[in-house]
Amino acid sequence: MQECYIKDFPDKIDQEIIIKGWVANRRSSGKLSFLILRDGTGICQVIVEKALFPDTYSEIKKLPLESSVIIQGRVVKEDRAQGGFEVHASHVQIVHVSDEFPIGKKEHGPDFLLKNRHLWLRTPRQIAIMRIRDALIRHIRTYFYTNDFTLIDSPILTTTCGEDTSSLFSIDYFDLGKAYLSQTGQLYLEAAISGLGKVYCFGPTFRAERSKTRRHLTEFWMIEGEMAFYDHKQNLDLQEDFVSYIVQNTIRDKAQELAVLERDLAPLKKIEAPFNRISYDEALDILHKNGSNIEWGSDLGGDDETVITRLFDKPVFIESYPKKTKAFYMKQDPARPECVLCADLLAPEGYGEIIGGSQREDNLDILMQSITDNGLDPERYDWYLDLRRYGSVPHSGFGLGLERTLTWICGLTHLRETIPFPRMIYRAYP
Amino acid sequence: MQECYIKDFPDKIDQEIIIKGWVANRRSSGKLSFLILRDGTGICQVIVEKALFPDTYSEIKKLPLESSVIIQGRVVKEDRAQGGFEVHASHVQIVHVSDEFPIGKKEHGPDFLLKNRHLWLRTPRQIAIMRIRDALIRHIRTYFYTNDFTLIDSPILTTTCGEDTSSLFSIDYFDLGKAYLSQTGQLYLEAAISGLGKVYCFGPTFRAERSKTRRHLTEFWMIEGEMAFYDHKQNLDLQEDFVSYIVQNTIRDKAQELAVLERDLAPLKKIEAPFNRISYDEALDILHKNGSNIEWGSDLGGDDETVITRLFDKPVFIESYPKKTKAFYMKQDPARPECVLCADLLAPEGYGEIIGGSQREDNLDILMQSITDNGLDPERYDWYLDLRRYGSVPHSGFGLGLERTLTWICGLTHLRETIPFPRMIYRAYP
Repeated sequence: MQECYIKDFPDKIDQEIIIKGWVANRRSSGKLSFLILRDGTGICQVIVEKALFPDTYSEIKKLPLESSVIIQGRVVKEDRAQGGFEVHASHVQIVHVSDEFPIGKKEHGPDFLLKNRHLWLRTPRQIAIMRIRDALIRHIRTYFYTNDFTLIDSPILTTTCGEDTSSLFSIDYFDLGKAYLSQTGQLYLEAAISGLGKVYCFGPTFRAERSKTRRHLTEFWMIEGEMAFYDHKQNLDLQEDFVSYIVQNTIRDKAQELAVLERDLAPLKKIEAPFNRISYDEALDILHKNGSNIEWGSDLGGDDETVITRLFDKPVFIESYPKKTKAFYMKQDPARPECVLCADLLAPEGYGEIIGGSQREDNLDILMQSITDNGLDPERYDWYLDLRRYGSVPHSGFGLGLERTLTWICGLTHLRETIPFPRMIYRAYP
Repeated sequence: MQECYIKDFPDKIDQEIIIKGWVANRRSSGKLSFLILRDGTGICQVIVEKALFPDTYSEIKKLPLESSVIIQGRVVKEDRAQGGFEVHASHVQIVHVSDEFPIGKKEHGPDFLLKNRHLWLRTPRQIAIMRIRDALIRHIRTYFYTNDFTLIDSPILTTTCGEDTSSLFSIDYFDLGKAYLSQTGQLYLEAAISGLGKVYCFGPTFRAERSKTRRHLTEFWMIEGEMAFYDHKQNLDLQEDFVSYIVQNTIRDKAQELAVLERDLAPLKKIEAPFNRISYDEALDILHKNGSNIEWGSDLGGDDETVITRLFDKPVFIESYPKKTKAFYMKQDPARPECVLCADLLAPEGYGEIIGGSQREDNLDILMQSITDNGLDPERYDWYLDLRRYGSVPHSGFGLGLERTLTWICGLTHLRETIPFPRMIYRAYP
């Protein structure tokens, strides 16, 4: 007798096998009971014939949903069944009779589902999203590997901060005072390029923002790449190649799961380099023509991004932001010192920013000035300034938000379903 | 003119190329200057002939170490040169003249090196370790992928704790009170198996322990696997297959980097399943014969592990620990209720514990009792208890410490070199 998984059924036709899983659904019709079994690799229909189970049929027939069972039976090809196969049971072992499962077929509100995230994860849409996430992450890592990047895991606990210092989570770090949860690994990656050339990190990052929007999580995963001797243009070329690669590979691999989500793949199939590139100034022109009165020097908001992305069917880079809207480490444009050599990449269909990137300031004096101008303590950045003292080079990098990218690929409206256990300002349980 | 990397030289023989990098070393002899250039993919010797550079030779000849340069020249095969090639320079552009690099050829103490970790990372041993780390991580992920595991990133910010609650870092989480930095993703993985069967997580974990040993970091990376319908024995079988796979693949891929570390590969080549398995009771016998007076019911310490691992040339599982020495979620052995169905895996050559694993308690009543007995608040674990209310199944899992495993593979004496920016109780900078 061979234990197997549902995904292996094509190789098991007419064989007697054992499968183990959960009753995702069931129905009965007189002398037959049909159990829809989920084993983590797929779904199949199990047919339990009353005549074969004189003692236990009545219990099997009423088995609560989500009960766990071990089924022995024969695999039969059946095109009408979900997945194309069914199992004719010869033995049914009930492992655990479930309490009444709280998530049913009726609509539940997001609050109820998030409170029951540990159970919600068993339902078909959530399983599909988790599998797409898994594939997306794999393709991201493969891209970096095949392009000669070395993984450098940047620290989470840090005393040097890369982004907005007003949205930091802090902890008491033994006798050293406060430490903070990392918002970016970039500064650390910049240290690593001198030994390794092209490096990346991929880990959780944290923002203690009181933002209650569909685009914000307090804990999310970010992929950051940093490349020695790359200028701004090479940085954008790499980003569009990267994004095209991960989108095309993920939708090819996970077509079945994207179908569960009813995602229209047509817009995603168009995602290939080159992407559109417009300047911040051009973006402002577009917004003004659409009735906005945004002033030069303001950062773009989520609604502004939505307006712009709807004009393009591919992602669009917005380049050359005013220096004062961006982080201290971005390189001042020598031709236009009030702007920096940066770009945000906005995903189409209204999704908005998925990447922020820039060439980095490699001049020691300008960088020191920039740290001071931003009200930061130069002493905390002394090690970072060292990188401009010992063989400074032109270099660039970018960070891609995993959950924002996944929300776009899956065609969802809210980030909260794209991470196994979402953390928001009002939620850190389960 | 073609820009290329040093690793590509075998395809560029006798071609004129451009390379960009840092001066890792140099020497001069009258009319020739030899620059050892590092570009992140390798090392090569660049020959600068005085006659070709009448105006700049004196500057090139004295270029401080770690200065950044762009070299144009011809690739020449030269078996006597490091890497097997050299470049005959036709053009040298100095990008940045470095200040005097603080890490030289003399011995530096660990405190000095750790303070300068951002610069130390450029030196040959550290580059080798980071490359081995990158490969090890890749093989770990490949193993899980090819064995049908789905990645489930568990949350870092948590209000439910899996391990020792006395060593938690805490933060103020908006209006929700305290949240903690995760010590394990296991409890969350247990929720995910019901939808996905076999799952894993791989992320940073935190222990606020005041341990100043060579085996402790406050922030380290852990790989955890969790498998539905796996019992204790299947769990060990998978672990030994997994560890054999990652060790053999890493030492095959990174032989060159391991040679930089002068790691003897002979002991690592022996690492293949099956591993040794002894019981906790047998371990105590061994320790008693070696002069220890450890009592039944005590956990094994680092020195105890060292004694045991020296008796075996492969990793050894120590099974069946007393329940009171282990975490609340481990399954009570039905045949011996004072013990749990668990095992620690100790690496040979004195390295000690790299994996902790167990079958998990799947009985609701026993688990609730265990939570109470451990002085934990059952209310915080209510979602976790749900997993035993809705289709509970036998299941098992394990966690492998990345840096401990890498310390062993690299043959190092201290964990601090195995992570880009180590965090210890007295160090969170750079």
